[in-house]
Amino acid sequence: MSQSAHTSFLAANEEYVARGGGQPPSLSAVPVKKLAIVTCMDARLNVFAQLGLKEGDAHIIRNAGGMARDAIRSIIISQRMLDTREIAVFRHTLCGMQTFTSAQLRERIREADPGNPALDVVNHTDFLEFTDLEASVKEDVQFLQNHPLVLPETTITGWVYEVETGRIRQIV
Amino acid sequence: MSQSAHTSFLAANEEYVARGGGQPPSLSAVPVKKLAIVTCMDARLNVFAQLGLKEGDAHIIRNAGGMARDAIRSIIISQRMLDTREIAVFRHTLCGMQTFTSAQLRERIREADPGNPALDVVNHTDFLEFTDLEASVKEDVQFLQNHPLVLPETTITGWVYEVETGRIRQIV
Repeated sequence: MSQSAHTSFLAANEEYVARGGGQPPSLSAVPVKKLAIVTCMDARLNVFAQLGLKEGDAHIIRNAGGMARDAIRSIIISQRMLDTREIAVFRHTLCGMQTFTSAQLRERIREADPGNPALDVVNHTDFLEFTDLEASVKEDVQFLQNHPLVLPETTITGWVYEVETGRIRQIV
Repeated sequence: MSQSAHTSFLAANEEYVARGGGQPPSLSAVPVKKLAIVTCMDARLNVFAQLGLKEGDAHIIRNAGGMARDAIRSIIISQRMLDTREIAVFRHTLCGMQTFTSAQLRERIREADPGNPALDVVNHTDFLEFTDLEASVKEDVQFLQNHPLVLPETTITGWVYEVETGRIRQIV
């Protein structure tokens, strides 16, 4: 087993506090920019730094791929309970979600553990992989625009982050 | 409508690139620390800074509350396709998820839009609110430990981030 990464958290967190981290007491749970970002869990995405955000600015929802379909519970709460009115959806280049299909992942799990009691759940799980990056951004923006539980007055944009250069570009 | 926050992204991103952002080409989609973090979408959580992470280190999965139940698709992909073997679950103090119940949120949506075609979906959605912070961390760690699709060799820890001080503390 690899060394446990969590053992570095406390010392690093002390440094954050010593640098003056922690929140101005005025910051509530309502994002200052009324913004929710949906993006991938990918380790190379440092969302705050890459978009110039600071503590308090925006909800950051992250999952495998940055898929809006897997973020609806969070988006409803973000809008209805915490007043956000803008959503920015991101994909990124060289995403792991472009390297497999749900069928292949199901097969991998089945082969590793043929007696797993959850194989039936796996067989009915859409892992939401995609092939075309820009098409996937557009689909997600459209999905949100048409979703009956996303507020109609929401500003929705779609973006790609380029892992190779650190640059973003707007698609929608 | 509030001014659109996304209009600041491009200039801020140029600064990130100018500061030498972007990725060492050696960074792949596999997290260097073999770590996945599950935490809340809350705007006050700057995960990289608060835990001393850098680009490439860890998958960051974020949703309303930081609920593991809502992160299973991502965790399966993180472990089976991208080799992580450690999960750290975070909650934080003053979380919006402690301020309402699913019943109240359903009522709010119904009152705002009684003809919404998705009210039936809303009525069957568990919004995963919680009351006791530490109990919720423990529950989530246990949920992951017992989940048949989480690899048994996974190191799983549970934490609270204190919004008031910037400090973290380990619960499990």
